[in-house]
Amino acid sequence: MVTDFPTIARLHAAYAAGATPEEIVAGVYGRLAVVDDPGIFITLVPEAEAKAAAAALGPYDPDTKPLWGVPFAVKDNIDVAGLPTTAACPAFEHTAEETAFAVQRLLDAGAILIGKTNLDQFAMGLVGVRSPYPPPRNAFDPAIVPGGSSSGSAVCVAQGVVPFALGTDTAGSGRVPAGLNNVVGLKPSLGTLSSHGVVPACQTLDTISVFAGTVADAEAVYRVMSVFNPADPWSRDPSASRRPSAVPPGLRVGVPDAAGRQFGGDALSEAAFDAALEDLQGQLATAPTPVDMAPFFAVASLLYTGPWIAERYQAIRAIVEQRPEVLHPTTRQIVQGASAYSAADAFAGLYQLKDLARQTEALWNAVDVLAVPTYPRPRSVADLAADPIGPNSELGTYTNFVNLLDLCAIAVPSRFRADGFPAGLTLIAPRGRDGLLSALAARLQAAADIPIGHSQTPVPAPGAAPERATDDEIELVVVG
Amino acid sequence: MVTDFPTIARLHAAYAAGATPEEIVAGVYGRLAVVDDPGIFITLVPEAEAKAAAAALGPYDPDTKPLWGVPFAVKDNIDVAGLPTTAACPAFEHTAEETAFAVQRLLDAGAILIGKTNLDQFAMGLVGVRSPYPPPRNAFDPAIVPGGSSSGSAVCVAQGVVPFALGTDTAGSGRVPAGLNNVVGLKPSLGTLSSHGVVPACQTLDTISVFAGTVADAEAVYRVMSVFNPADPWSRDPSASRRPSAVPPGLRVGVPDAAGRQFGGDALSEAAFDAALEDLQGQLATAPTPVDMAPFFAVASLLYTGPWIAERYQAIRAIVEQRPEVLHPTTRQIVQGASAYSAADAFAGLYQLKDLARQTEALWNAVDVLAVPTYPRPRSVADLAADPIGPNSELGTYTNFVNLLDLCAIAVPSRFRADGFPAGLTLIAPRGRDGLLSALAARLQAAADIPIGHSQTPVPAPGAAPERATDDEIELVVVG
Repeated sequence: MVTDFPTIARLHAAYAAGATPEEIVAGVYGRLAVVDDPGIFITLVPEAEAKAAAAALGPYDPDTKPLWGVPFAVKDNIDVAGLPTTAACPAFEHTAEETAFAVQRLLDAGAILIGKTNLDQFAMGLVGVRSPYPPPRNAFDPAIVPGGSSSGSAVCVAQGVVPFALGTDTAGSGRVPAGLNNVVGLKPSLGTLSSHGVVPACQTLDTISVFAGTVADAEAVYRVMSVFNPADPWSRDPSASRRPSAVPPGLRVGVPDAAGRQFGGDALSEAAFDAALEDLQGQLATAPTPVDMAPFFAVASLLYTGPWIAERYQAIRAIVEQRPEVLHPTTRQIVQGASAYSAADAFAGLYQLKDLARQTEALWNAVDVLAVPTYPRPRSVADLAADPIGPNSELGTYTNFVNLLDLCAIAVPSRFRADGFPAGLTLIAPRGRDGLLSALAARLQAAADIPIGHSQTPVPAPGAAPERATDDEIELVVVG
Repeated sequence: MVTDFPTIARLHAAYAAGATPEEIVAGVYGRLAVVDDPGIFITLVPEAEAKAAAAALGPYDPDTKPLWGVPFAVKDNIDVAGLPTTAACPAFEHTAEETAFAVQRLLDAGAILIGKTNLDQFAMGLVGVRSPYPPPRNAFDPAIVPGGSSSGSAVCVAQGVVPFALGTDTAGSGRVPAGLNNVVGLKPSLGTLSSHGVVPACQTLDTISVFAGTVADAEAVYRVMSVFNPADPWSRDPSASRRPSAVPPGLRVGVPDAAGRQFGGDALSEAAFDAALEDLQGQLATAPTPVDMAPFFAVASLLYTGPWIAERYQAIRAIVEQRPEVLHPTTRQIVQGASAYSAADAFAGLYQLKDLARQTEALWNAVDVLAVPTYPRPRSVADLAADPIGPNSELGTYTNFVNLLDLCAIAVPSRFRADGFPAGLTLIAPRGRDGLLSALAARLQAAADIPIGHSQTPVPAPGAAPERATDDEIELVVVG
């Protein structure tokens, strides 16, 4: 367990007090050696190169470069020029010629790239272990799956190696591993982060996501990246989503009704969810409203049992049709199912979705935010070995419907289960309400009063000014 | 040729001066007998029933019932309770149990239904003669196709039988027949008229459309119908589209550049388009901007050569799969092509469309309205007999891309070709700008200084108060 989690504010306080970015980078690699998880990175930037990038930053300047000297990692389905992109499929490996639009915004803001992280192959999975590379270990319990598909990025942040990392999110890949590793997972409104340079999964549903130790850090990173990209047909005006928000006094929150509470019979997860709802209630003037989750669950079931699987097929069509043997067996099995669907079926699926979406609109007239468990219950690596599909589907119970319905969401740490394993709450709202979700999530993370990730560092109060660093603290941040 | 075209204003002036709706209805059936075109209606309401509906209206009350006593027709792919819906396929015939949402708004506003009109079978075609029923005759020249798919509705208005009629528009079915018969064809922003009760063609692209003698009448009918329908998943908030607009002094209009001028070598159509542009120029402070039509034409080609044909397949799947022999041979040939497309192809088509849509966005930063010919050149019934596909595709040159790009449009009469056949201009704008299009179209129709439809009635000046009817005029309206 890392003693002190390196939030952006703490790193900047250290820089302001005289630490150098080369020292911070050295701390990152030192921390990585201590964590000793060979599954996190598929490609690690050599320490000397990261230090060279740090040295090239020039004088400390957090005003024009809000991420000055902040180390980060990106999921290996996002391009960085000069580095291989594998999407966890060695046969797919190629050196990227261009850096993804969003990653370039981070580099321009002074962030320092450490490496490319492991994932469920082609981002197809919510378990994090459908990869030919060694699977990353869950930061809290190696018997439990790390969650996916952005497993390496979530674990890398939870272990305090970097303050933030990028994932992607189509069905929950940016939220499930956040919940399973006690970090924040910000899944923004679709199109507000450009997908240019991201290996597609379902192009109509994909987004980059952010893992961070705190809501404030996730939000800061999101703001740097959320720039309209006219060259990306999926890019949309991000201005509404970027707008900061407060939690309005009369905020109306919905929670799953009795039938919508799905924990697979796990009493510890159920109790942890109720504890999270108590913290939530403490932030609200009125009690949450029980919500019928049936239309949401019906939407969720479209994602893997409906024609959307054909988007994944189309994304890697050449591989599926010409050399399917290079795919992970589970990935192959899933994606080959797409050939059962005709174009007419695809449109029929779009009609079903449209119909269900209309059904959910009534809900959004009654509540502003929906609060759900991030995942129903922890599932073990052994569970997965016995059944590669079932536990994966279960993990997506509260995530699969979000992108299909064009909603935004944030997974936020909440009180641990009684066995000490992280639970996690997810807040969901209609597109464009990202700022509201972050404001509420920041309050909840503080109220939960648990450390950041797998560290001993408490969450700063929302809006608290970063403390002035003492020499001791600089030392702690620098050595990780 | 009808002497006096029955605009809504003229009918209301007649009512105000003492005419009865039974008299007006008698005039409609009298006029229909004179026109003597058995192809217009698939189902005609018996005259006695229409008169009974007229008698049931109560006292003349145009304030609470803006369409009080106004006769109209609807395309026979739109349901009216108690009447058969055929979509021009006798094997599909069934008695509708419910009246389409939009039609009910018209009835509630006092309009009187006369019948259900002929169309290209399942609204699949732009020629108006792909029907097992006798094809409607073009109001100006029976050797030329009436245009479709809403052939019966367009001809019915052009012949002065009714002031307005409903069509539908997926690829241009509400505009091409308007152009070929010298009437207004209003194709609103998608979702602003509920499709509840309409036989689907391509659900993602379908809309009800309005044919009328004047822009003012089309707009009045549109406003009555454009009510949000929460039970229809495709219904969208119509408030922006319903907002009346003036033509702003600095309006920027785009026109096809040299390569985008497609008339199939027909010099008369080209000259008529240039005459229409002169009238347009007279309404503008600045000259129109030549626009590269290539991305629009690329979108248009997706509609029939891409996976969208699978929407038409899905709409009549049971028939296509179980008894294809009941379909019109051309309809069958087209729709069976859908089986070549997989779900992956469908999504690939959506991606192509997204990419092309982004390319067209730059245009909409440079111009407010695009002005194009409604159709390239008239095609004959004989042309169609020789080649059922080619001339149909050509007729959609300037219409096919509009709904795929979520644009609104209005086809407006313009100066006739030198041979006396109608030409027609179509104005196009991004969704929600319906009011602007109507404002400009009204000015253009008045500037063209041609009679309404196939009548001798001049177009009233835009915004002119309806004249007070003289006894002579009442007589004319009543006898048609």
